[in-house]
Amino acid sequence: MLPELSSLETFRHLLSVAPVQDAAALADAQARNRQLTKPPQALARLEDLAIWYAGWRGEPRPEIKAPQVIIFAGNHGVTAKGVSAFPPEVTAQMVANFEAGGAAINQLAKLAGAKMDVHAIDLDSPTADFSEAPAMSDAAFLRALRVGWNAVDQKSDLLVVGEMGIGNTTAASAICHALFGGTASIWTGRGTGVSDEVLQFKTEVVAAAVALHGSEIQDGLDALQRVGGREVAAMAGAMAAARLLRIPVILDGFISCAAAAALAKTVKGALDHCVAGHESAEGAHPSLLNHLEKKPLLSLGLRLGEGSGAALAIQILKGALACHSGMSTFAEAGVADG
Amino acid sequence: MLPELSSLETFRHLLSVAPVQDAAALADAQARNRQLTKPPQALARLEDLAIWYAGWRGEPRPEIKAPQVIIFAGNHGVTAKGVSAFPPEVTAQMVANFEAGGAAINQLAKLAGAKMDVHAIDLDSPTADFSEAPAMSDAAFLRALRVGWNAVDQKSDLLVVGEMGIGNTTAASAICHALFGGTASIWTGRGTGVSDEVLQFKTEVVAAAVALHGSEIQDGLDALQRVGGREVAAMAGAMAAARLLRIPVILDGFISCAAAAALAKTVKGALDHCVAGHESAEGAHPSLLNHLEKKPLLSLGLRLGEGSGAALAIQILKGALACHSGMSTFAEAGVADG
Repeated sequence: MLPELSSLETFRHLLSVAPVQDAAALADAQARNRQLTKPPQALARLEDLAIWYAGWRGEPRPEIKAPQVIIFAGNHGVTAKGVSAFPPEVTAQMVANFEAGGAAINQLAKLAGAKMDVHAIDLDSPTADFSEAPAMSDAAFLRALRVGWNAVDQKSDLLVVGEMGIGNTTAASAICHALFGGTASIWTGRGTGVSDEVLQFKTEVVAAAVALHGSEIQDGLDALQRVGGREVAAMAGAMAAARLLRIPVILDGFISCAAAAALAKTVKGALDHCVAGHESAEGAHPSLLNHLEKKPLLSLGLRLGEGSGAALAIQILKGALACHSGMSTFAEAGVADG
Repeated sequence: MLPELSSLETFRHLLSVAPVQDAAALADAQARNRQLTKPPQALARLEDLAIWYAGWRGEPRPEIKAPQVIIFAGNHGVTAKGVSAFPPEVTAQMVANFEAGGAAINQLAKLAGAKMDVHAIDLDSPTADFSEAPAMSDAAFLRALRVGWNAVDQKSDLLVVGEMGIGNTTAASAICHALFGGTASIWTGRGTGVSDEVLQFKTEVVAAAVALHGSEIQDGLDALQRVGGREVAAMAGAMAAARLLRIPVILDGFISCAAAAALAKTVKGALDHCVAGHESAEGAHPSLLNHLEKKPLLSLGLRLGEGSGAALAIQILKGALACHSGMSTFAEAGVADG
């Protein structure tokens, strides 16, 4: 089903030939929607979501039965610069917490009936400090993409990709600054809650990183390799694999959307199978969502990562499909349709 | 547990002596929240919701196990004026659809693990046309309140109150106009989707109703009786009963919030046990939510009623409690807390 990811060229090629929605399923789902026992458009965004999902799955009346949440974890050399409120050891501690079932994402995945997988990628070998050198070599980058690529369960019918990595809002900010321009300050936020002083320093680190690598960044994947991180690359790999498998993806917060942006700035339309789950409180996330042309399903102020906002949004998508596929038509119910 | 609703005076009295949150449970829930494995405030509104819910339930670490969705249905004399896009027969047809499991709310209640009850109130005898006379006599109003009052399952731990009633956005607009002033036009919207011409006429009907009854309306219950409807009154009765039973309530859209407004404008603080589930696309709903000082959990453009937005929001509240009550503390997980 899923081709082997043998090289970065293969990855770029597969992105460029990715499948699109099934036109027949899309048309059938639209026709069904018009017959359901409700005023036209009364379920609004739920109707759009159901039809969109049906098109990707190639079924006019699908259900969501097997959502998957994957958490990727990585460590970042840039934390040596003191950009985070937490020490890098917390990455491994939180991975243990995920594995023991004690984190927020465990509770939210369970509530959504999603299976959850955790991939910690070389935590003992942080990526290079990207304010001084490329975060990853070609080989390390390909390896990280491949972890994500191979983590997607081909039997899943919905995917949430989350992350854990002390320092990774700095990486996400650098990716955004490299890909969308502007100033470092508009893309740099407080992450897990740094002070004004650290925020200022973090912004300078982001600016330095993009100044160093900018001329070498031709597309989104270049940015991901040079100023990203292993878990961010793995997220992009998983999102791309999901596209090939026609598995819709719910994007999470700032890091997740930065990984997604790397795909979108490599191949136009690469995120057509993705919906934004949640607008995070991390300062630059709303702007990033605008660049991706995605309107979030939820806006509850979360700024945790882990895929938490997207996992919560699984319920919205499930609700949309439950209505679309479970409701009676006007004819079935004997209801006058206005 | 729940006193009998013997008169309108009893109802007003019980509203005025309603219980408040349990201070000890509230403090314990706040203390627990501070110890969970996440940066401070990273779950944002989910944290607030969990603590709020814990306070009402009187348990520092509660779960949501038995949500209840109740749908009240009623018919409105004012439909004779031609204010709706659908004929009044649709109320009974949709009640049959609820009972057969074919409506949107059936799917959403099932998804949320909620039991669903339907109460159709005297559908064959519409209320009086409130643009010409009070919608309900004292006796009819008390009977409708009592249907709601007695419909709440004392074993429920969360309540959603939905409605079906062709013409009831007109009643809700009249309640809002009577209670919050302004012009009839700011409170009157398209309901299930009326034309510009019908909207203009509907607005005139709302204005006429409030001009007729305004001087007799001293509080929210007066408005509910004179320009409301049976299902709207029953919703208010159920919300008030939930308060006495310490069952938190998720408000739905415009009609649900108009019923809630009748309580809030009778006794200050009457909605402290309520959270707004969803901001509807019905034009005046955002303004009504502002008057109630409630910030919606969801904003997906729904304008269906039936409790649909609130039922979807059950999942958000469940997510909040799943995190609050299920997560490990820093000490339990061996995670450094910054």
